[in-house]
Amino acid sequence: MADPRFFSRSGPFDLATVLERTGAKAPEGADTGRKFVDVAPLEAAKSDEIGFLDNKKYIGAFENSGAGACFVTGKLAERAPSGMIALITGQPYLAFARAARLYYPPSPPEPGVASGALIDETATVGEGSRIDPGAIVGAGVEVGARCHVSSGAVLCDRVKIGDDCHVGPGATLMCCLLGDRVWIDAGARIGTQGFGFAIGPTGAVRIPHTGRVVIGSDVEIGANSTVDRGTTGDTEIGDGAMIDNQVQVAHNAKVGRGVVLAGQVGLAGSARVGDFAMIGGKSGVSNHVKVGTGAKIGALSGVASDVEADGTYLGQPAVAIGDFWRQQAVIRRLAKRSKGE
Amino acid sequence: MADPRFFSRSGPFDLATVLERTGAKAPEGADTGRKFVDVAPLEAAKSDEIGFLDNKKYIGAFENSGAGACFVTGKLAERAPSGMIALITGQPYLAFARAARLYYPPSPPEPGVASGALIDETATVGEGSRIDPGAIVGAGVEVGARCHVSSGAVLCDRVKIGDDCHVGPGATLMCCLLGDRVWIDAGARIGTQGFGFAIGPTGAVRIPHTGRVVIGSDVEIGANSTVDRGTTGDTEIGDGAMIDNQVQVAHNAKVGRGVVLAGQVGLAGSARVGDFAMIGGKSGVSNHVKVGTGAKIGALSGVASDVEADGTYLGQPAVAIGDFWRQQAVIRRLAKRSKGE
Amino acid sequence: MADPRFFSRSGPFDLATVLERTGAKAPEGADTGRKFVDVAPLEAAKSDEIGFLDNKKYIGAFENSGAGACFVTGKLAERAPSGMIALITGQPYLAFARAARLYYPPSPPEPGVASGALIDETATVGEGSRIDPGAIVGAGVEVGARCHVSSGAVLCDRVKIGDDCHVGPGATLMCCLLGDRVWIDAGARIGTQGFGFAIGPTGAVRIPHTGRVVIGSDVEIGANSTVDRGTTGDTEIGDGAMIDNQVQVAHNAKVGRGVVLAGQVGLAGSARVGDFAMIGGKSGVSNHVKVGTGAKIGALSGVASDVEADGTYLGQPAVAIGDFWRQQAVIRRLAKRSKGE
Repeated sequence: MADPRFFSRSGPFDLATVLERTGAKAPEGADTGRKFVDVAPLEAAKSDEIGFLDNKKYIGAFENSGAGACFVTGKLAERAPSGMIALITGQPYLAFARAARLYYPPSPPEPGVASGALIDETATVGEGSRIDPGAIVGAGVEVGARCHVSSGAVLCDRVKIGDDCHVGPGATLMCCLLGDRVWIDAGARIGTQGFGFAIGPTGAVRIPHTGRVVIGSDVEIGANSTVDRGTTGDTEIGDGAMIDNQVQVAHNAKVGRGVVLAGQVGLAGSARVGDFAMIGGKSGVSNHVKVGTGAKIGALSGVASDVEADGTYLGQPAVAIGDFWRQQAVIRRLAKRSKGE
Repeated sequence: MADPRFFSRSGPFDLATVLERTGAKAPEGADTGRKFVDVAPLEAAKSDEIGFLDNKKYIGAFENSGAGACFVTGKLAERAPSGMIALITGQPYLAFARAARLYYPPSPPEPGVASGALIDETATVGEGSRIDPGAIVGAGVEVGARCHVSSGAVLCDRVKIGDDCHVGPGATLMCCLLGDRVWIDAGARIGTQGFGFAIGPTGAVRIPHTGRVVIGSDVEIGANSTVDRGTTGDTEIGDGAMIDNQVQVAHNAKVGRGVVLAGQVGLAGSARVGDFAMIGGKSGVSNHVKVGTGAKIGALSGVASDVEADGTYLGQPAVAIGDFWRQQAVIRRLAKRSKGE
Repeated sequence: MADPRFFSRSGPFDLATVLERTGAKAPEGADTGRKFVDVAPLEAAKSDEIGFLDNKKYIGAFENSGAGACFVTGKLAERAPSGMIALITGQPYLAFARAARLYYPPSPPEPGVASGALIDETATVGEGSRIDPGAIVGAGVEVGARCHVSSGAVLCDRVKIGDDCHVGPGATLMCCLLGDRVWIDAGARIGTQGFGFAIGPTGAVRIPHTGRVVIGSDVEIGANSTVDRGTTGDTEIGDGAMIDNQVQVAHNAKVGRGVVLAGQVGLAGSARVGDFAMIGGKSGVSNHVKVGTGAKIGALSGVASDVEADGTYLGQPAVAIGDFWRQQAVIRRLAKRSKGE
């Protein structure tokens, strides 16, 4: 269970509540009044806790789990050990997420402005918002309702953020507009000037970057990530985009709706990532290159030219995943042969 | 145009002023009294705005642009649409940069020390400098004239920075000396201890890092980048070096004058990058390895041994760019053949 | 020598003291009363300074060094120039580290709570600890003895840190427990929520991350690195682990004792790195993948499946290092041949 030092848990909840909240189905005759106190991983779950099985690879843990109930597909449900109620759903991980949110519901911050917060008198802070000690809110800033601005966060002049936003400790916002329910994690830098200059006879001539960063709603940006503002025009992050830690989004990049960028990804200037595309950890996309809608890019890849919608790509430079593995197979075969020589 | 919420624009300026400032030439008979209000990208520019064409790839946008004037080379000038004045120059992007600085001139900060800044009484702050709320300036720190130290920035004891420097929000400086006109962006860490230890019988023995970081003038260091101080001796960043976001410069590295390091580059300990060399995004240079003067390293490359001046290198490990593409061609051909088998 | 602006030096010390502290042996008849004032690199060392030779590659610098003494293996000692005392040891770099700590001993911070530190009244701060101006210490936080919490650092509610810890400027700690003698460098983010969500019909459903980060003793975490807390269960960093700058450790990763992670490494969720393994700069380890005890991973590698204890691996995807170089040789040979065609 979660350490009560840091987290408080709701519940217990009876099975009927869990089923209603998650959309899963229990087998006929299951005791829907049975109480469950928490969600837990299969290896650790006890008889009053709920696990999930989302990957056949973990079927062993499932068969040996002490969990009292488990989200699982209909196909695998029959392999549940005795004592475990199989909670049948087409998407066990989604059901687990919903159950976890039942036990650990996101809660609005305790409203108030801490002493030790530095708020410019021309800033406006919406109802129910909390500003922590040591947070800094500049002139003309607009903070929506029920926002949480953490200690050490800096909202520079005239930044505007919607309702129910979270700005983590030490994060910085400038020249940007945020939608609702945006989570900016600790140390993220939004709206900094991009990397733009021309080379003149006596060195680099800095180009003023007078664009903005415009972020939709339901977006997450991870710890120590950076999103530069546009040169002219905007850097854009679409609704529902999920961005991990230490990701770099350069000036004028366009990140579509529901895009997933894993840790340490880098998008160069004016890169475009289509809606619902997913990019694996540490991969990069070059200047002006377009990743098609729904495309998947494996980890540690370099996308140096446009890739098509819905394809899967891997490698440096990235190629269609089948080609990547064929290349690997050829290289390995030749190397093996050379070893034999 | 730039959002007036965040940026204020100068002008309008007549064509004569634009020409004088940028060094471009208008065709004979052009109306040099014509007023222009802004710079803009070709696709968005209107008849009172100025664009640029720097890459033949965008000739279509040029021919269809509504821009009233456009920086362009003499060779392509004849393809300007009617209504557009071709502003002829050998370096259109440089001219554009200069024009952009005319409309959006860098301005010194509004002088003053905000209430809520924490400044040690033994620190000195030069004339015309601005210290924002929540900035922290330690004992014996010396800040030059017309500097801007942003909210949440920390200047540790005895750090010295020159004139006209900018320290972004949440950035940290320690054990370092900066020249003039240095821009340290949000969250950058300058002068932290390097990664140095010896392995003893009971674990790592930390080596005290008692060097400094010495940064020249006209340097930019991007958001959340890190520059460690030397073990003994200094980590050095030469005049005019441009360093993007999330770059790591390890202890005792030497970065030459006018070097360009793109986003997420990493230089290992004692790496040396010669004057005017350029390193593409996400590339790494190994310990004690030297990149020659003016060399160009492509993105996502690994420089594991010295590379020569003025060469262009790519790959992991990095090889001469011609060799890289030959290797790629061979692998692709073999993989294709294996597919056909 | 170290710039006295930033560092104060102890000593001078006589040779007997240096020998005693480092375990090195001087040749018979050496003057153990001779005074030495500092350690220095071979190229810069003077007659009252001590260098080290740890790599045959630098034998030239050794033979030409002006150092009055030098740590060196018995095998190479005879090549010492006249005037240099060879200090014989099996581990010259370790001896150097110990000598450097003699001249630049780590010292506990000057105790006290600065005015301008914001400390919740329910927090406890151990004897001899120092809290700098602008540091923020939340409710229920427990800080051990002789700790140093720097300016702009944020210790979120109920975080607990042991004795003799250092939290660098602008670093953030939440949902974590630290052992003793832990060094968290500037801008590091410990305990942020992991990258975890399920995709539902209307977009990502965030999974509450209710685990912790548990860090052992004698651990270093570099500037702007990030360590996410567990989903359920903990992200763990073992005793003596050394983690460089800009490293990403995702939720539920397990980093063993004495592990070394170089700059910009990324560990994906639930990755496991065995005790004393070493991972080179910019490398990544995939989700749930295990790096065996004592394994060595070269720089810029991608570990996509489990690798065995004590092996050395390189490449993307990482393979045994011998195989990597064989692959490279084959590719180069074929490319050369194609060039000749």
